[in-house]
Amino acid sequence: MTDHTHDSSRRSWVASANDAATDFPLQNLPLGVFRALGSAAPWRVGVAIGTEVLDLRAAAGQGLLPGFGPGLFDGTLNALMAEPASQWRTLRHLVFELLAEGGAGGPASQLLVPQASVELRLPADIGDYTDFYASVYHATNIGSMFRPDNPLLPNYKWVPIGYHGRASSLVVSGTAVTRPWGQTTAKPEGPPSFGASRRLDYEAEMGFWVGGTNALGTTVPITDAPARLFGVSLLNDWSARDVQAWEYQPLGPFLAKNFASTVSPWVVTMDALAPFRCPAFVRPEGDPAPLDYLTSVADQSAGGLDVTIDVLIASAAMRAAGAEAYLVSRGTLADLYWTPAQMLTHHTSNGCDLHPGDLLGSGTVSGPTKESRGCLQERTWRGTEPLTLPSGETRQFLEDGDEVIMRAHASRAGFRRIGLGECRGIVLPAHA
Amino acid sequence: MTDHTHDSSRRSWVASANDAATDFPLQNLPLGVFRALGSAAPWRVGVAIGTEVLDLRAAAGQGLLPGFGPGLFDGTLNALMAEPASQWRTLRHLVFELLAEGGAGGPASQLLVPQASVELRLPADIGDYTDFYASVYHATNIGSMFRPDNPLLPNYKWVPIGYHGRASSLVVSGTAVTRPWGQTTAKPEGPPSFGASRRLDYEAEMGFWVGGTNALGTTVPITDAPARLFGVSLLNDWSARDVQAWEYQPLGPFLAKNFASTVSPWVVTMDALAPFRCPAFVRPEGDPAPLDYLTSVADQSAGGLDVTIDVLIASAAMRAAGAEAYLVSRGTLADLYWTPAQMLTHHTSNGCDLHPGDLLGSGTVSGPTKESRGCLQERTWRGTEPLTLPSGETRQFLEDGDEVIMRAHASRAGFRRIGLGECRGIVLPAHA
Repeated sequence: MTDHTHDSSRRSWVASANDAATDFPLQNLPLGVFRALGSAAPWRVGVAIGTEVLDLRAAAGQGLLPGFGPGLFDGTLNALMAEPASQWRTLRHLVFELLAEGGAGGPASQLLVPQASVELRLPADIGDYTDFYASVYHATNIGSMFRPDNPLLPNYKWVPIGYHGRASSLVVSGTAVTRPWGQTTAKPEGPPSFGASRRLDYEAEMGFWVGGTNALGTTVPITDAPARLFGVSLLNDWSARDVQAWEYQPLGPFLAKNFASTVSPWVVTMDALAPFRCPAFVRPEGDPAPLDYLTSVADQSAGGLDVTIDVLIASAAMRAAGAEAYLVSRGTLADLYWTPAQMLTHHTSNGCDLHPGDLLGSGTVSGPTKESRGCLQERTWRGTEPLTLPSGETRQFLEDGDEVIMRAHASRAGFRRIGLGECRGIVLPAHA
Repeated sequence: MTDHTHDSSRRSWVASANDAATDFPLQNLPLGVFRALGSAAPWRVGVAIGTEVLDLRAAAGQGLLPGFGPGLFDGTLNALMAEPASQWRTLRHLVFELLAEGGAGGPASQLLVPQASVELRLPADIGDYTDFYASVYHATNIGSMFRPDNPLLPNYKWVPIGYHGRASSLVVSGTAVTRPWGQTTAKPEGPPSFGASRRLDYEAEMGFWVGGTNALGTTVPITDAPARLFGVSLLNDWSARDVQAWEYQPLGPFLAKNFASTVSPWVVTMDALAPFRCPAFVRPEGDPAPLDYLTSVADQSAGGLDVTIDVLIASAAMRAAGAEAYLVSRGTLADLYWTPAQMLTHHTSNGCDLHPGDLLGSGTVSGPTKESRGCLQERTWRGTEPLTLPSGETRQFLEDGDEVIMRAHASRAGFRRIGLGECRGIVLPAHA
């Protein structure tokens, strides 16, 4: 379902959008919520284009986006997410024409501000945040550490496993993260002591933004799920592994996670990702087929996403030396056992209501190779195989001062590469 | 910490408040959010008194609540919950004087509306909902069904176990609940089938409303926790046991719970409950003492609450015959292993931010006896000991048309009995 907004031959009159290396070419057009850096101006919705932001609220106010009033671009993306999916696409086409060479965009040139001069907030007010567990490689790796004889539980290949996360502690990229305190134990049966976590980890995830509403008691058939998926941001589900190991049974992770989860500020729409769809995970011989309510022809043939996620670490020493961040892992959403539509449809299959601005995390994106494992727990195999950074420092888990940087992009022959920007966070020492 | 607002000799000029059987005497003064039944009028905050509601927005507008503007009583309780605890108490004293015989309340008589003429909504916009697991009896009973040789996990007596619930599917008392569909299995290892739940259950819980805010990265010491607890409502954490058994490992319950949770509309403040405080749970010989961060002298001596919760069922046949609802169980919060302050302090011990209107569920309130078990899973021991209703019908789990009614009250010699009102819900058949 690609159209002329994916045409790689089209260029923008915003010169920086035509750089081969930009995350934000004319074919991307991700949405975010910005204001002048350090100001108390009202937040408004903009589109990233090259190194600039197009102010959509102002564009709508000037009548450059027919059918879209400026109120739709106030404060957060929630109002736009509440519109029907057809409107999301219409907006994409309008903005494309405004920013394309040879388009109608003359007046828009007055509505650009440099990204370097703005700050970005969370793209939406997030009513509920759900975290899935969609990588079978991640689930198998983690399971084999906790249950060597039974790594993957019998429900995994039937149920898109998920659980509720904390909405209030979602923070935007760039927010520092304080190492949490918690109960940890030397032995599985305790006794615990209370202190700063010594096994602080990240998890590289993709966040899927929900659009539209289904009333409580109604479901979203898998054929309707695509119209409920607005776009994606990167998500770092910071995890205190020592706290998690002690607290998580029987009701799941809690304080090991809810001290902070970091979200990247630019929402790349599902429409922008259309060229990078791929088939649903090809299940190995012997795996059950998904149940009927989780199956559609369209989802099986093109419900996956081939989007690459990189995780990099820069220690304080590396940053002080001006060294580049170190690439720790590279994974792809194509390795997920469940598609975004399957996750969303499963979530509503009991009548649970989803609303504009809800966020669905993929769970850690890990692949079959060591270099594609999306958290340190897997990447260093619980600390038993430490990483060596270019500075010579070693890491089992994160140290104070470490910055974790996640980046994601999609590329395919014949199409412009598009990126998600960055999801960053520096670890601050625990409180005394 | 009782004061003259707990004086049982004080009467109200609202005659119905002096009935011995009322939940809402002068000494209670619970807060709720109401509007005229069936109207589209703006929601506003009121106080239940006998069979009436005092319109606090109007009272403030007329200057009857010095220091409290009408805007504090618009729409939800969130704004009031954001005020310091000292203000909550000041408001209680002002309203007490308005409604007491011999008080200053003449003008307030024009601001009463019959409860029968109003509808009530959820008391607050709930940002995040957390559910704890604070009854050791419940945890032991459930654990013994799933793990007969190891009913109580080693973390239970150290960690106030909790997990995140779904905020969007919290509904107010009186909302019908549709039986959910889900994956269930005949054998623990599967395969599952997808259909309507056959093991629908309730859970009798107390919900604790959070007031005030702590910023992300900050903690609430247990000595400060009382100032962050605004009040209580009843909570029915509906549960699909067959869905839960299959889905809950390893990340906890999800679709088994988030199809609906019912909240009672009147918030009884912690100030109203002051006479009914009791010591924290007396741990049996051999149990560890709680860790230091979960211990204060005040909390150990009076951090508990002696509040009784009744669960009643009325089947469709019983209602048709005009029969009274049947009392299935009676439990008390005094049986909880963890105090509300311990739950709140633990929740923030990693820096998690709590906000006005957040809701903390106690978990199922069960006691040591069969008659005090707060869900059917325990009460009928997983269906193996069915209940017989007065109509002659039997119940292992809930049937379509069953109404579940929860009531709670606190009483103590020398004090007026106060009640929480009701938390009701009727089970509707699953969708076809």
